[in-house]
Amino acid sequence: MVVGEKQNLNENEEVAAIDETVEEVEETVSEIEQLTKELEETQDRYLRVQAELANIQKRNAKERQDAAKYRSQVLANELLPVVDNLERALEIEVEDEKALNLKKGVEMVYNSFVEALKSEGIEVINPVNEPFDPNFHMSIQVQALEEGQEADTVVSVVQKGYSLKDRVLRPAMVIVAQ
Amino acid sequence: MVVGEKQNLNENEEVAAIDETVEEVEETVSEIEQLTKELEETQDRYLRVQAELANIQKRNAKERQDAAKYRSQVLANELLPVVDNLERALEIEVEDEKALNLKKGVEMVYNSFVEALKSEGIEVINPVNEPFDPNFHMSIQVQALEEGQEADTVVSVVQKGYSLKDRVLRPAMVIVAQ
Repeated sequence: MVVGEKQNLNENEEVAAIDETVEEVEETVSEIEQLTKELEETQDRYLRVQAELANIQKRNAKERQDAAKYRSQVLANELLPVVDNLERALEIEVEDEKALNLKKGVEMVYNSFVEALKSEGIEVINPVNEPFDPNFHMSIQVQALEEGQEADTVVSVVQKGYSLKDRVLRPAMVIVAQ
Repeated sequence: MVVGEKQNLNENEEVAAIDETVEEVEETVSEIEQLTKELEETQDRYLRVQAELANIQKRNAKERQDAAKYRSQVLANELLPVVDNLERALEIEVEDEKALNLKKGVEMVYNSFVEALKSEGIEVINPVNEPFDPNFHMSIQVQALEEGQEADTVVSVVQKGYSLKDRVLRPAMVIVAQ
């Protein structure tokens, strides 16, 4: 082997070594880029699922609050005809003492019934002589305005309405003067 | 500059270059390690918050279900004394026609009241002649066993109890034969 050849070989080896190093560096750079990309994506996913979690908790708190606020709505709706019928029964006039006792008892029941509903935020809508309000009243008949009456006044409540907090369970059925 | 010095300088430069490369490689390795660690930690955090999200959604669904299931409990508890008083009023005996009409009306109200409660899963506990069950009955008096009676039988219900689905709102107050 001549000197020139050896040098040539050495140079080739060096070039090969440099090529290998360049390849390794490229691989390393690509690995770092890949890792950085994956890390950013995972961080992004993490932040998004965390935000989702916060939203869900907020929404659930609101739902829980609403569910508690209006929890009595279904039972109240079932009970409104019961209260109506109790009122109707109390319109029956009686005379003898035992019957008056019964009526007095039923009146007390009626009052405690209304109180029990009130304690859960269920209130009577009974707007006699009040201005007609379509949010809470349903006009089922119109009557000619008499002297001294304001227009759009409720002159008679045919069936009482009921509200549950800020919701109307049933509007009052009314006769309006116009 | 002598040849030896120049060679020495070259060697020094090479050593410095090698040192620098070693340092760079070490830094790169450490960077990759750091990135890998951060990626693993972030992935771990992501998985944990995702699991937490799944748990919270499951728990919320259960809470919503329970809230719906027992939604009428508060109003029902308020209404039990009303039903009691209605029953008590109906024990008053009357004779004349108008009073009988009133009583009939109130009986219908009572029945529709009990039906309205039932539609929300509220049931009467009235265990006359049934075996005493401490889960649903409260013994307020014990009576000597009479002939033909089984021990631990409810002989009389002093106050009816009520249940809401699988919950007891109020146990029945009973007299038990022993």
